[in-house]
Amino acid sequence: MTAENQDKHGVGPVETKYLRMPLPPEGFKLENGGVLPELQVAYETYGSLAPEADNAVYICHALTGDAHVAGYHSAENSKPGWWDAMVGPGKGIDTNRFFVICANILGGCMGTTGPSSIDPRAGKPYGSTFPSITIGDIVRVQQLFLRELKITRLAAVVGGSLGGMQALEWCIRFPEMVQKCICIASGMNLSAQALAFDIVGRNAIMEDPAWANGDYYQNDQKPHQGLAQARMIGHITYLSSENMERKFGREKKEIQAPLPRFATSFQVESYLDYQGTKFVNRFDANSYLHITEAMDVFDLTEKVREPSEAFRSVDPKTRFLVVALSSDWLFPPEQSLELANVLIRAGKRISYCLLRSPYGHDAFLVEIDRLAEVLRAFLKSPDHPEPAQENVKSGGMTETFERQCPARKRQDANGDFTIISGLIQKKAKVLDLGCGDGRLLCELFAHKNIFGLGVEIDLENIIAVIRKGLDVFQCDLDEGLNAIPDKTYDYAILSQTLQEVRKPRQLLNEMLRVAKEGIVSFPNFGNWRQRLHLGVTGKMPVSESLPFEWYDTPNIHLSTLRDIRALCALDGIRILEEICIPRSFLDSICLGLGFRNLGADRVLIRITRED
Amino acid sequence: MTAENQDKHGVGPVETKYLRMPLPPEGFKLENGGVLPELQVAYETYGSLAPEADNAVYICHALTGDAHVAGYHSAENSKPGWWDAMVGPGKGIDTNRFFVICANILGGCMGTTGPSSIDPRAGKPYGSTFPSITIGDIVRVQQLFLRELKITRLAAVVGGSLGGMQALEWCIRFPEMVQKCICIASGMNLSAQALAFDIVGRNAIMEDPAWANGDYYQNDQKPHQGLAQARMIGHITYLSSENMERKFGREKKEIQAPLPRFATSFQVESYLDYQGTKFVNRFDANSYLHITEAMDVFDLTEKVREPSEAFRSVDPKTRFLVVALSSDWLFPPEQSLELANVLIRAGKRISYCLLRSPYGHDAFLVEIDRLAEVLRAFLKSPDHPEPAQENVKSGGMTETFERQCPARKRQDANGDFTIISGLIQKKAKVLDLGCGDGRLLCELFAHKNIFGLGVEIDLENIIAVIRKGLDVFQCDLDEGLNAIPDKTYDYAILSQTLQEVRKPRQLLNEMLRVAKEGIVSFPNFGNWRQRLHLGVTGKMPVSESLPFEWYDTPNIHLSTLRDIRALCALDGIRILEEICIPRSFLDSICLGLGFRNLGADRVLIRITRED
Repeated sequence: MTAENQDKHGVGPVETKYLRMPLPPEGFKLENGGVLPELQVAYETYGSLAPEADNAVYICHALTGDAHVAGYHSAENSKPGWWDAMVGPGKGIDTNRFFVICANILGGCMGTTGPSSIDPRAGKPYGSTFPSITIGDIVRVQQLFLRELKITRLAAVVGGSLGGMQALEWCIRFPEMVQKCICIASGMNLSAQALAFDIVGRNAIMEDPAWANGDYYQNDQKPHQGLAQARMIGHITYLSSENMERKFGREKKEIQAPLPRFATSFQVESYLDYQGTKFVNRFDANSYLHITEAMDVFDLTEKVREPSEAFRSVDPKTRFLVVALSSDWLFPPEQSLELANVLIRAGKRISYCLLRSPYGHDAFLVEIDRLAEVLRAFLKSPDHPEPAQENVKSGGMTETFERQCPARKRQDANGDFTIISGLIQKKAKVLDLGCGDGRLLCELFAHKNIFGLGVEIDLENIIAVIRKGLDVFQCDLDEGLNAIPDKTYDYAILSQTLQEVRKPRQLLNEMLRVAKEGIVSFPNFGNWRQRLHLGVTGKMPVSESLPFEWYDTPNIHLSTLRDIRALCALDGIRILEEICIPRSFLDSICLGLGFRNLGADRVLIRITRED
Repeated sequence: MTAENQDKHGVGPVETKYLRMPLPPEGFKLENGGVLPELQVAYETYGSLAPEADNAVYICHALTGDAHVAGYHSAENSKPGWWDAMVGPGKGIDTNRFFVICANILGGCMGTTGPSSIDPRAGKPYGSTFPSITIGDIVRVQQLFLRELKITRLAAVVGGSLGGMQALEWCIRFPEMVQKCICIASGMNLSAQALAFDIVGRNAIMEDPAWANGDYYQNDQKPHQGLAQARMIGHITYLSSENMERKFGREKKEIQAPLPRFATSFQVESYLDYQGTKFVNRFDANSYLHITEAMDVFDLTEKVREPSEAFRSVDPKTRFLVVALSSDWLFPPEQSLELANVLIRAGKRISYCLLRSPYGHDAFLVEIDRLAEVLRAFLKSPDHPEPAQENVKSGGMTETFERQCPARKRQDANGDFTIISGLIQKKAKVLDLGCGDGRLLCELFAHKNIFGLGVEIDLENIIAVIRKGLDVFQCDLDEGLNAIPDKTYDYAILSQTLQEVRKPRQLLNEMLRVAKEGIVSFPNFGNWRQRLHLGVTGKMPVSESLPFEWYDTPNIHLSTLRDIRALCALDGIRILEEICIPRSFLDSICLGLGFRNLGADRVLIRITRED
């Protein structure tokens, strides 16, 4: 991208600024006991701070990132920032609205104090004397630095990978400062496999004789071989296998000069070589050792009896967005899901979604569109749904969504919502299973002032729910409600979805595990219309309430009111209320005569576990 | 395991033997142009060669294996062979029946000529002068060696990982010699990701100054650091992430002495250290370089227009068994599946199955039970089903299977098989979708002398089919028939399974893509009994042909005869024959009166694509 192009679409020219932090005479004390006599922070900002100072968004960078997030430095050095596609006017993190800040992390080598900085006491680089740091230290430095900028509250803290760990640490350590937290492709700690890769990477550096125990800055030889080797190992873990296959496969490059023995001509070999060589020119081996070590020992689950206790200090008003990337195997989706589960268990406000991407861990840097949509929705959303907003379309996105989303989910053509709303007590905790775009939750919020969580599988719906200021959890109901702890909700609602799930019996029981009451509406296959249709025509019925052909229907477990009653009796489920909804005059007559199964076009039941 | 214990359960004491191969004066020519002046092969054998010499099984070892497959060397050195759990009397590869042979591969360092062997011309180890080798060379040496043992035909060649590549090369290069081929956790080539790991591993060795360009044998310093580093990287790829998590998680070991800087106390770090250190004592760095290079360049798809051409030379009577391991990410299941697909396209006899295992690539070495069951079934199976065998129980396994397998699949209580058999022409090519334990295929083989392939999802069934001497492909019908090329079969049979699949419409059309005719039997929801049941009782029918409750039925897409007719008309499918099967006298009366939909309890249709 040329500088000129960027001017049109990006934040324009920026510069990295350097701030020397005022420290007490004893220096900056680190968590592992070390002390830094000085502290410099390199940072960039984009957009402007609002007079109320309520629009600051702090971005935490990953292992090898720096403060240069967006824009470019000058016409001569027009290299865009590492997240330029995400940060800028009108982008996912919109600099027209937010004042965006990013600083190089402590221990880094891009302007903030790190092992390659000059130790003022010795007059030479710290090298082997640089003390051990933690993610806690990194975040404490960021907070000190923001204090210097007179920022005492963040509209959001955002980070991917190691940056996500920092974002979590922010919420735990400075709960009063964080309004929203976005944690992308990260987790509460590293997996054993990720630890193993870091260990092998550090080995490679330390076994390079040029590393010289960390004191190589004044030597001619630098530990470039070891650092390149560590980078190559890292790079393999950043890409998905699928992505490597697409990008390189087994393609070979044209050989110009004869290759050294045991070098191959595979494209993937030249790619890794290139990545390794490029890296050693911009990164410091000691920084790599220190930062990976801090990442390895970071573990929110370590010193608590139960992981949710790690978030005890977090402000209950802080809203979390946890984003997983489907083909990420360094921080696999299970780790984000686990984090989201723990946040739910901790009683926090949390939305979780899984983005499909073939790009592996790198996806948060290279596949921006979808992620930007989710971040934009979350960052701009009100803290609570605004009832008026339901009918307002907010830009192109919603329009696409309106077209794609089945009508049944989007609006309450059937009038179920009104009935359900009538059954719900004020200020109740409500779980809406298959919540669609969140309309029912909005209604319940407006009329009953509930605390609600939606569960939904479709990403477009999820974005719509997030945009409304509601919390939503992406999950396939067929995989159960493992994320939800026992008895967390007053009501679990399942509107017109029971017949679509693989294991309806299991789901009914799960609903009554997580909530005191279940409210379930379903089409009644026992209605005279269905029976007559099958009986007379000998074809599977297709009707308004069952609008699909047999071969492509999502309704794979049809049942009648009598079937449901029998199942409830079998499983010790008490039906507290049974609302039969007619569709025609004849339906109503049947119901009037007491033939409920015959007359009900749809049924809505309120259930609870028998004592 | 003590030597005494092994005597009871294993092959007992064995010794590694060494054979110096007679070579022509010009030496042994290698594929890449090099020449070896001498050739020694280290090998072990177990069991006895039958007088007909028809029971030899050759085992190809993986990257760092050796000839010592089973048993132990002496009371003092009772270390069991690397596949001792698989090879022995009554084991998966049964030494009571088979004469089992394994030799260290060319380029290795366990007794067969490799870079650490003495070059007789120079009187010192080959080192940097050892020529480049290929998998082809490795297999050619094995064939030469077997000729010395007077073995001209192999009952089977078996290998996992790199061994699987050798097994495939065997079938291509010496087709007349191989009766059965077992290829476990392998593929036609390495993926880009696997290449990348090998590249980084080789780098680690070559960047170790002690490697000295390969001529380190007479130096004090050996490239142990680099080799250990390569081994550590390898080890991460052999284990699944799940397995590492279970085995080590983030557990820490008790620290005895202070750790070196940047070493962590995580168990996974000591495990990797241990693996690295142990390895350098038994393996040679140059062998690691040569063998991984041979593995990297091996590519059956490289010089052919279409991958199936790679198997052109293979004897059509050779039977393949391709086994994938679910959590293997070095040779992921997709690669085995791809290999199996290609073998089907090439018109070979092939069975494919996927074993569920959490142990990653290593599973073929450490999780033996299931794999042994599959190998035993395949190795002992006749080349064609023996009709009499159908009713014979062959040991404990079958008994377990009989208990587990639903009766509906196992036997033809409904009499469908007889009807289907009547519809099939002699010597036809038949695909049986959802083939259960293979009984229908057996019957068709006995009475119609067909060429058949079963498709099945359940592993117990797969083993039963393999044991019968039939070919079977493990696959979920919901995922389509991608493995099967267009118009490969005369008939595709789908017996009582249509209603169980997610996409019945797609499957019907897929059947007519891969076969000229489809034969489909299904329960008729249009039968008067179902209609009356729903109409009168208002509950979903549970009957002999639909024996499940609505909430746990696998029958998720019920249809009537009329529905099927409509769908066929819609998709341009012609119904050639429509066989309505009554269950009761009343059914028969309806059918007699011409009310086919009312009378048919089950329906069997023969369909084809309209011209």
